[in-house]
Amino acid sequence: MTGVQQEGDDQSVSIHLLKQKMADFAKERNWDQFHSPRNLLLAMVGEVGELSEIFQWKGEVPKGLPDWKEDEKVHLGEELSDVLLYLVRLSDICGIDLGKAALRKVELNAIKYRASKNYGTNDDSTAEMCG
Amino acid sequence: MTGVQQEGDDQSVSIHLLKQKMADFAKERNWDQFHSPRNLLLAMVGEVGELSEIFQWKGEVPKGLPDWKEDEKVHLGEELSDVLLYLVRLSDICGIDLGKAALRKVELNAIKYRASKNYGTNDDSTAEMCG
Amino acid sequence: MTGVQQEGDDQSVSIHLLKQKMADFAKERNWDQFHSPRNLLLAMVGEVGELSEIFQWKGEVPKGLPDWKEDEKVHLGEELSDVLLYLVRLSDICGIDLGKAALRKVELNAIKYRASKNYGTNDDSTAEMCG
Amino acid sequence: MTGVQQEGDDQSVSIHLLKQKMADFAKERNWDQFHSPRNLLLAMVGEVGELSEIFQWKGEVPKGLPDWKEDEKVHLGEELSDVLLYLVRLSDICGIDLGKAALRKVELNAIKYRASKNYGTNDDSTAEMCG
Repeated sequence: MTGVQQEGDDQSVSIHLLKQKMADFAKERNWDQFHSPRNLLLAMVGEVGELSEIFQWKGEVPKGLPDWKEDEKVHLGEELSDVLLYLVRLSDICGIDLGKAALRKVELNAIKYRASKNYGTNDDSTAEMCG
Repeated sequence: MTGVQQEGDDQSVSIHLLKQKMADFAKERNWDQFHSPRNLLLAMVGEVGELSEIFQWKGEVPKGLPDWKEDEKVHLGEELSDVLLYLVRLSDICGIDLGKAALRKVELNAIKYRASKNYGTNDDSTAEMCG
Repeated sequence: MTGVQQEGDDQSVSIHLLKQKMADFAKERNWDQFHSPRNLLLAMVGEVGELSEIFQWKGEVPKGLPDWKEDEKVHLGEELSDVLLYLVRLSDICGIDLGKAALRKVELNAIKYRASKNYGTNDDSTAEMCG
Repeated sequence: MTGVQQEGDDQSVSIHLLKQKMADFAKERNWDQFHSPRNLLLAMVGEVGELSEIFQWKGEVPKGLPDWKEDEKVHLGEELSDVLLYLVRLSDICGIDLGKAALRKVELNAIKYRASKNYGTNDDSTAEMCG
């Protein structure tokens, strides 16, 4: 794990770094041939399925997952990561700068859902936040 | 867009920055009350659906999306971002350091799928890469 | 709705009938050209996303949805149907007899998860039921 | 398999029959306690993920899957069935008559997308068919 810590602590892991690592990973294994947009999209859907399986029989779970065992949390981290890695790779293969697009989307959302004093009512606009 | 560029160019947008922005965004709108793990997971599945709709009737599309109009690419960037933003928020609410977990997963994948001279055959191990 | 009631009440709507209706529908509109396996799969994922959006901000909801308005239930029925219709169409295009396969899968599940007196413990096998 | 054939051939397997089988199955195992709407929805998303994994590295595949091995098709039939069975169960638990809703949705689609002589152009309306 030393290598990981040298490269970046939790505050500095960038979308760009992950993109680069995925690109190198695929190139070293000659997997570029499999990484078409729709192949990657379906692979990501597969990982979203695995992520959902972790939560499927649990009913509602509280924030911070206080009752989860450590190995369950590690597994969860792996499935969240798999979704992220395919999402980053899909964006790269599509020629989309995901980091830039995400910052722009946050700004668009801020315009769409202005913070106000009458906040937090679960009305229709709330229901589609980030939609 | 000036604010965006000051905060970070495409190479420096970090998972941590996005996490912070999503946390501030929810807090300013009193939306923390809606951001339970399973609510966020289902919201992410909703965004994965919207992303899939972009690709659904297109058949296979080549890398870089050479024939897509500019507004289609902008739309794609928005849907990719929506998935990312909910994924980052879900991880945060679950107490998972997504950036750290993703770097660790890349390392685990490198051990699982060692680069070799006989690479790129579409055998069973390839079929589950990142799985 | 008379036509519907003549063709079948709620107890007789078969997978085969829905398959036939989807095939006729596509043929009449010259949509067979769009109905490739992966196009239909992604369309189904899109509908699963729309279904998830209905549930995304609600927290846990009780069986029978006692507090839902009638129009919410109608909307839910439409989204459940969209998933079903694409699933039926995808199966047909893949040459899979979905009704027969589903009956077989129920039997396989019955062998995998035998009913017993020590039932209903949320152990590992329960966690993957139907998996 | 004799039981299956007695109960129904491929043309007579109804949504109602599958609903009944799933209800009996859950009751015999005391699994009703786990079958809340959102648990079942996430379980279905998990199965959609498994279905997507079958198609993820294949690129576009032709109708009828002429090059697939028999065991791949059997596996595909099982994953399609898992999605169907959870969808049927989810509908039942929500109090939705899925067969009736699906017939109604086909009729709504027929009104929305009228068959015409100028059919089959891949315009915007086509792009959302069944949407």
